[in-house]
Amino acid sequence: MDFEYDDVTKERLEALRAFMDEHVIPAEPVFRRELSELPDRFAWSTVPVLTKLRAAAQEAGLWNLFLPGDHGAGLTNLQYAPLAELTGRSLHLAPPALNCSAPDTGNMEVLSMFGSDEQKARWLEPLLRGEIRSSFAMTEPRVASSDATNVELSIRRDGDEYVINGRKWWITGALNPESRIFIVMGKTDPSADRHRQQSQVLVPRDTPGLTVLRPMQVFGYDDHSHGGHAELDFDNVRVPVANLIGGEGDGFAIAQARLGPGRIHHCMRLIGVAERAFEAMVTRSTQRIAFGKPLSDQGTVRDWIAESRLRIEQLRLLVLKTAWLMDTVGNKGAHAEIQAIKIATPKTVEWILDKAIQTHGAGGLSQDFFLAEAFAGTRALRFADGPDEVHINSLARGEIRRLGVAG
Amino acid sequence: MDFEYDDVTKERLEALRAFMDEHVIPAEPVFRRELSELPDRFAWSTVPVLTKLRAAAQEAGLWNLFLPGDHGAGLTNLQYAPLAELTGRSLHLAPPALNCSAPDTGNMEVLSMFGSDEQKARWLEPLLRGEIRSSFAMTEPRVASSDATNVELSIRRDGDEYVINGRKWWITGALNPESRIFIVMGKTDPSADRHRQQSQVLVPRDTPGLTVLRPMQVFGYDDHSHGGHAELDFDNVRVPVANLIGGEGDGFAIAQARLGPGRIHHCMRLIGVAERAFEAMVTRSTQRIAFGKPLSDQGTVRDWIAESRLRIEQLRLLVLKTAWLMDTVGNKGAHAEIQAIKIATPKTVEWILDKAIQTHGAGGLSQDFFLAEAFAGTRALRFADGPDEVHINSLARGEIRRLGVAG
Amino acid sequence: MDFEYDDVTKERLEALRAFMDEHVIPAEPVFRRELSELPDRFAWSTVPVLTKLRAAAQEAGLWNLFLPGDHGAGLTNLQYAPLAELTGRSLHLAPPALNCSAPDTGNMEVLSMFGSDEQKARWLEPLLRGEIRSSFAMTEPRVASSDATNVELSIRRDGDEYVINGRKWWITGALNPESRIFIVMGKTDPSADRHRQQSQVLVPRDTPGLTVLRPMQVFGYDDHSHGGHAELDFDNVRVPVANLIGGEGDGFAIAQARLGPGRIHHCMRLIGVAERAFEAMVTRSTQRIAFGKPLSDQGTVRDWIAESRLRIEQLRLLVLKTAWLMDTVGNKGAHAEIQAIKIATPKTVEWILDKAIQTHGAGGLSQDFFLAEAFAGTRALRFADGPDEVHINSLARGEIRRLGVAG
Amino acid sequence: MDFEYDDVTKERLEALRAFMDEHVIPAEPVFRRELSELPDRFAWSTVPVLTKLRAAAQEAGLWNLFLPGDHGAGLTNLQYAPLAELTGRSLHLAPPALNCSAPDTGNMEVLSMFGSDEQKARWLEPLLRGEIRSSFAMTEPRVASSDATNVELSIRRDGDEYVINGRKWWITGALNPESRIFIVMGKTDPSADRHRQQSQVLVPRDTPGLTVLRPMQVFGYDDHSHGGHAELDFDNVRVPVANLIGGEGDGFAIAQARLGPGRIHHCMRLIGVAERAFEAMVTRSTQRIAFGKPLSDQGTVRDWIAESRLRIEQLRLLVLKTAWLMDTVGNKGAHAEIQAIKIATPKTVEWILDKAIQTHGAGGLSQDFFLAEAFAGTRALRFADGPDEVHINSLARGEIRRLGVAG
Repeated sequence: MDFEYDDVTKERLEALRAFMDEHVIPAEPVFRRELSELPDRFAWSTVPVLTKLRAAAQEAGLWNLFLPGDHGAGLTNLQYAPLAELTGRSLHLAPPALNCSAPDTGNMEVLSMFGSDEQKARWLEPLLRGEIRSSFAMTEPRVASSDATNVELSIRRDGDEYVINGRKWWITGALNPESRIFIVMGKTDPSADRHRQQSQVLVPRDTPGLTVLRPMQVFGYDDHSHGGHAELDFDNVRVPVANLIGGEGDGFAIAQARLGPGRIHHCMRLIGVAERAFEAMVTRSTQRIAFGKPLSDQGTVRDWIAESRLRIEQLRLLVLKTAWLMDTVGNKGAHAEIQAIKIATPKTVEWILDKAIQTHGAGGLSQDFFLAEAFAGTRALRFADGPDEVHINSLARGEIRRLGVAG
Repeated sequence: MDFEYDDVTKERLEALRAFMDEHVIPAEPVFRRELSELPDRFAWSTVPVLTKLRAAAQEAGLWNLFLPGDHGAGLTNLQYAPLAELTGRSLHLAPPALNCSAPDTGNMEVLSMFGSDEQKARWLEPLLRGEIRSSFAMTEPRVASSDATNVELSIRRDGDEYVINGRKWWITGALNPESRIFIVMGKTDPSADRHRQQSQVLVPRDTPGLTVLRPMQVFGYDDHSHGGHAELDFDNVRVPVANLIGGEGDGFAIAQARLGPGRIHHCMRLIGVAERAFEAMVTRSTQRIAFGKPLSDQGTVRDWIAESRLRIEQLRLLVLKTAWLMDTVGNKGAHAEIQAIKIATPKTVEWILDKAIQTHGAGGLSQDFFLAEAFAGTRALRFADGPDEVHINSLARGEIRRLGVAG
Repeated sequence: MDFEYDDVTKERLEALRAFMDEHVIPAEPVFRRELSELPDRFAWSTVPVLTKLRAAAQEAGLWNLFLPGDHGAGLTNLQYAPLAELTGRSLHLAPPALNCSAPDTGNMEVLSMFGSDEQKARWLEPLLRGEIRSSFAMTEPRVASSDATNVELSIRRDGDEYVINGRKWWITGALNPESRIFIVMGKTDPSADRHRQQSQVLVPRDTPGLTVLRPMQVFGYDDHSHGGHAELDFDNVRVPVANLIGGEGDGFAIAQARLGPGRIHHCMRLIGVAERAFEAMVTRSTQRIAFGKPLSDQGTVRDWIAESRLRIEQLRLLVLKTAWLMDTVGNKGAHAEIQAIKIATPKTVEWILDKAIQTHGAGGLSQDFFLAEAFAGTRALRFADGPDEVHINSLARGEIRRLGVAG
Repeated sequence: MDFEYDDVTKERLEALRAFMDEHVIPAEPVFRRELSELPDRFAWSTVPVLTKLRAAAQEAGLWNLFLPGDHGAGLTNLQYAPLAELTGRSLHLAPPALNCSAPDTGNMEVLSMFGSDEQKARWLEPLLRGEIRSSFAMTEPRVASSDATNVELSIRRDGDEYVINGRKWWITGALNPESRIFIVMGKTDPSADRHRQQSQVLVPRDTPGLTVLRPMQVFGYDDHSHGGHAELDFDNVRVPVANLIGGEGDGFAIAQARLGPGRIHHCMRLIGVAERAFEAMVTRSTQRIAFGKPLSDQGTVRDWIAESRLRIEQLRLLVLKTAWLMDTVGNKGAHAEIQAIKIATPKTVEWILDKAIQTHGAGGLSQDFFLAEAFAGTRALRFADGPDEVHINSLARGEIRRLGVAG
């Protein structure tokens, strides 16, 4: 047992830290300004300063760090985790600068593992080069998406094509016109076994019948800085059968495969968010004077500081251990831990953000600080891949079973 | 001791309930649509359906219910409280429909109590008739506004005029061009005793030197549906000395006088918000099926329902008792209780809204339900009149003193 | 709506306050000493100082205050509630001094409502005079007692006698040899409708076949200061059929009838416990110096003080409203509120006791203060009449039904 | 970074697990019975079955595992931590069986590090062989012991002797007549620098003037199963100057030196307590039927199970990391983490015990299960080495300083 990062990690961390300080953090106000000047505010990936950052990241060797194997940087989950955390400190800028932002990461993983050679050439390659963006369309408005087998969107084979009908929402990034390709989950065979009814197909953005209906808001934010969350309509959308990923009925398994890494990434980035919020809380509380002394002299504020530190430390260790388990015993062996971090992380970081906001006064809720927007994004993650309650129930059932009794 | 509402309250409640059902609730979607079609989205008070509602409310005798004495409906705080709760069920529409929305209510109270005859004729009368709107400018960006003696805005006498210089923010309603008059708190004499340095003056909206700089956001909302929250700049703004409310140095006392009723109103309306959220939680949980049964069959959801009920009941009783105390022993005698409800209410209602959101899935965070916006508004109230922590500290000090020991 | 106690209440409160100050509080150390000198420590009701207190209470007209109607003081629940709260300040001494301690109160209520003339003469009369003590035997070790229909103890008719077999535990007061009569709940007809299988019979303490097996402990306390909690064995215990209370099959209904007042009494007394703990917390925190200033100057301690005040105020109002509902619409109409206070009270008071202990340092956990023992007793009430979770579930189901949907 | 235990740890864990299963767990009821039959119930270390266990442990090479270096098993903190956790599963039996129970462990560490050869020969040797027991007398009734510099007990030099006067309480183990030697902290020079006033001296149990006044209780428990917690009076107690540990004025530094390992040990054992409670919670909840289904089918109970798992996992990782830091950068470098686990552990384990109790019904509070006693012991640890609040404040101050601002 050893709690020290390995040399590869330390070296990359150092490089990334320098890159953050020199390039990313100074670019934040530039990004905001340039974004506000775009004709289509959802076309965030075309902001000039981001293009420059991406070039700089490639030059610095900080590119596709998330992707194991030959297509990417070849890091383990445990090696990538602290790097992902660091990018969380500039949540809307650092991940895309490094070509490591969701949902492109998950889509690249899926194409890398399950894509045909043709699919890889056509979609994976430009994604790896950061030339296009992509989306993943799974959640539906009419069913509880916590249960992936509930998806209702129909994918019906008709000769050499699939015909797609249905509705999706909360499709992150899809309002960005640069999001060229959507991986769409639906049902090819409603009569098959429960976990073999689903398939995933590639649907190019401009396919006739596919309509972007509206942006969904999260606490008033349309999240245009990372492409928004679209409601989509599929009305007799037709794609060639070659657009199927894997085989018919593989949809559920492919969805499961992307979950593990996806959660690790989300959780690590959130820890970066928490650290930045923590620093903001401490700094602000030492600077703001009320009733004759700095807020940091108040016992309540000290409670928040100590409790935040405690929670971050414990959370990070759990996420790192989960990454290590994924590397050593596989995603399946790390199943309980992956659930655990999914439950613990948003809740913990939300708590810290609330306290950081409170030390900033009403301004903490406004556009003048990153805190309120980070709160909204973190709160939303309590629904990602199903609400907390589903994972809590499942984790408990697993424990009951593990201790030798049916649950 | 008697927990039944008196006859006046019951009669007004019945009339208001009918008015809500017949007029206000059906007008909600109309208001949203008409508001979105306004050339200036902050000019909310000009929305046609609202004008109709106000006429109907006057006809129904549901007008200025908040105001005791001859100028208003003459209700006690205890009588008004359940009515205010009911208006909270349609938070952005019912209060203005009845001419009972903040900050106009507080401004009318102040003018009614401290205004000169001329001030009453010029500003109170049109406010009572609902012809104009108003704002109250106290909070400042550079100081902790939890301590009212901190205000820095300068009000300097120069002949027959006051010259005003400084900055304010979070000035609710001020982005609405219909907000014709601002009550502005500032310092007339920085060398006076700590609580005699402040004065309040009336500043008409179009006075030269007064600039509305920008809308503040709460999470991602600009709150244009009730006039937004402005940052204001005062640059050598000149008003006649007759615009002073009360005497020089009375500013702090006048500010205190508006706090008690203001908090009761806020708290009662929030309880209405909580009741509506509670009903939404219960209804949704009985309708949404996950894993083969309605959410309302899950133990966790039942916990939320029971706990919400418990918290609402206790909170309402405390607020009502506070109203009763204000009526019987005065605002000063009810000081501890007024602090108590200020602390307890936003926190409690925020908790209930969070659970209501959670039962709605990701949609609960979006524009499709009222919950996320209500959460944002409720969260912001944890800063109104100073952050919770100031009131907690003060309440504790009061208890320590009450029990006979210096605090 | 009126939050002032009526004149009867105020007058009795004044008398009781004087009695507490002059008699009860000074008797506390005497009681502890005399109790420790008893040959049988469970025979608490024979302690000399208690006998004196009881005489003084009768003289002061403070006797059987809990009992409505002719047999008792004739107070309403709402009138008795603040008196019960006051007795909670000396939880082990004041209630018995006034002949108002559980389980005698519930037993007197039951006999008063359902007892035959003979049963009243033989058992109710001496109980009303405070000459004997009694117990109520319902909870059983082998079944979840949250569901009263689960009781397994058998009451079989055999000629003119009932033959009783089974096991009970947590029978409060039963280790006291002065507890002369036990009301025993069991099954007379396991084949009847679910709520008509149970009956209640009177079993004198010295009936052959009835064995007191052992005292149950709560944490490390055997609660001998109020008669302990016994495990009892019934082995062919025979009583005449005239010992049946009401009719065969009435057991469940009789058990329900005693619940409402019982819970109000428990809750009010616990609020008295909370108030005393609160005062101890405040006093101690002003006296104890750490790191150069009194604990009461620490923000964390002030949080506890303010939060305790807030919680007590809200809780008391809810309990009083419940008492008022019982008086005006009956126990059935107050069903939801009775559940609500059962859930809210122990949890709230436990929290306050924990903070009071924390301000006292390690001594707060010891025999030197009343706090740890009060914590244990309060914690135990989270199981009384079934664990919290049962009542939470039931309250939620009621709300779901009330809002018009099946639950 | 590697989350796998090293080979030494794994091998010892296997041996210890076998020893627990074969020897310790079966001995638990024997220990309770034999303990209850002792003439002096505090003489717990003389219970026959414990003597057998100690012999077996020595034979199995499971002896003095806690002690690094030549005197003990030579394990690092990180290696010992999981072993200590395992002993926590049988908290009152396993640690003494392995000669690893507090306060002997801390006393042996102190003597091993700071003792003279004579002191080692006379006291350390028999302690290492498990022939005698010892106590550590630091906490005093009249001062806040959270600040070690507060101690008032006087150690005055008089010729070749020290004369000791003062009062101590909460001296664990001291009621056991086998506790032959007390390490006593007091003031040798009240005029020295704040951290140089204190010294530690060895006082044999039977020294004239030393009186064991009474056992302190924790929630009604006198904790005789591990020697109780004594209040001690020192009235002109005289010991030779050779009984001084280290030099005069070294007392504070020596006290600090024992804190780090002591806390790690406490925390790891508590995690063992938590794991056993967790298993009891799960097992009981699958076996207990209420309202037609096992408790483990209730959503609320599943919440407890999942949340307990989450908290234990995070806590263990933090404790292990702290152990690793102590091994790699020393106790001083691990200062913040040592504080962190001191704050987090008792609170977390207390929460889990509360839920485990709740799943056991009222029985969970009684002598029939280990849960209530474990709760009391865990609650008491929130005061050990000063109450939580002191450590929270200190941890926060450290963070404020670390982030570059004075605190």
